[in-house]
Amino acid sequence: MVVKSQIKLIRSLQQKKCRIAQKMFVVEGKKTVNELLASKMVVYKVFSTDENYKNNIGEVCDLISDKELSQISSLKNPSSVLGVFYIPEPLKIDMEDWVVVLDDIRDPGNLGTIIRLCDWFGIKNLLCSATTVDCYNPKVLQATMGSITRVNITYKDVSSFLRECNMPIYGTFMNGEVVYNQALPKKGVLVMGNEANGISKNIENICTNKIAIPQFGKSTTESLNVATATSILLNEIRRGNF
Amino acid sequence: MVVKSQIKLIRSLQQKKCRIAQKMFVVEGKKTVNELLASKMVVYKVFSTDENYKNNIGEVCDLISDKELSQISSLKNPSSVLGVFYIPEPLKIDMEDWVVVLDDIRDPGNLGTIIRLCDWFGIKNLLCSATTVDCYNPKVLQATMGSITRVNITYKDVSSFLRECNMPIYGTFMNGEVVYNQALPKKGVLVMGNEANGISKNIENICTNKIAIPQFGKSTTESLNVATATSILLNEIRRGNF
Repeated sequence: MVVKSQIKLIRSLQQKKCRIAQKMFVVEGKKTVNELLASKMVVYKVFSTDENYKNNIGEVCDLISDKELSQISSLKNPSSVLGVFYIPEPLKIDMEDWVVVLDDIRDPGNLGTIIRLCDWFGIKNLLCSATTVDCYNPKVLQATMGSITRVNITYKDVSSFLRECNMPIYGTFMNGEVVYNQALPKKGVLVMGNEANGISKNIENICTNKIAIPQFGKSTTESLNVATATSILLNEIRRGNF
Repeated sequence: MVVKSQIKLIRSLQQKKCRIAQKMFVVEGKKTVNELLASKMVVYKVFSTDENYKNNIGEVCDLISDKELSQISSLKNPSSVLGVFYIPEPLKIDMEDWVVVLDDIRDPGNLGTIIRLCDWFGIKNLLCSATTVDCYNPKVLQATMGSITRVNITYKDVSSFLRECNMPIYGTFMNGEVVYNQALPKKGVLVMGNEANGISKNIENICTNKIAIPQFGKSTTESLNVATATSILLNEIRRGNF
């Protein structure tokens, strides 16, 4: 069963400020909960309406009714498994490889996709501005497909990080130099900007290299989506050192 | 105003079979309607609750009430503009450049993103299997951001097209050769497969070149999303001939 104080706690975790205060977050769905259980993430409690699942998972899982599940789930059609985990303390950022920096990414699907891309391309460190959407937002977690367990995500002031990082800083700009012609170094920082406005002015001034993905179609085309652009640039970074 | 038969027609266009029977489709939102009006697409009628907009657009636009708009819109919170257009006849596929072929793409957001990518990378021809989601599905149209007016999209049997195309056929497979090491030709076919199952067996047998995007992170990572993989491969195709 799930007690009243737990219902209150779990429902509160739908809000960012409560996640930060409690240092906890919720994931729904058997597959993602299992991935988190198998990772270094620390679990608070798992709830399931499925007795077999509960028996497989053991002590950490409580068997609950469909009604109880609907009280703690944020989904209209809840999956049979919901997990509550502790938000890990971010590790120190390793400066021996590329670091991805996000300047004010607002769309949860974009952040989730970028986390998944970092995982694919072996980027261990992702630094997000305080204005970037929270990575423990349920929609972000859904889009990461478990990659959140393998990428070290830090929220902090981007400009002070960049000023002190002592690495080449690549930012994407419409008028940047074609990325194909760049000899990309073995380590550096890749900055990706806001969906509508791109990289903010004060961050632009700190970038050491302005790059662009050339457009081959008519110039009326919308700009590339930020997650799509990130996939192309991470591929450019890795292909050069393959 | 919008008459009863129009309401019936427009509502029916939410279904694929009716779009095919009527050769018409619906788009909602001022920006996309304007892009379609400025393109070669042929308009049937535009409806708007905004008198200024109606006056700007002229004859082809009918002023309607909020209540009428809610009767024809598929959105919970309708935008002030809804347009009905004729589905264009696909043009003959130009074999002088790369052609993208989709084998059973099911997710509307993925198809919309791939259409937008074709537009960015100047790919003029997109061929979809009959099982691929309809490109005039409202969710696809929303994701294309107007790119649908600049890409020639054909639905037909993929295997017979591939057998007759007389071009190198590149398919993406987990065990394919690393794409970075390939000298990609100036023209060819790029086949992208279903979200869950990849390229189907009968299409796999027709592919002349099996390629892969290497994975740099841990092998536990989920595969790349099909739209993300398409962005990387189109970039690979174009960067070689830049």
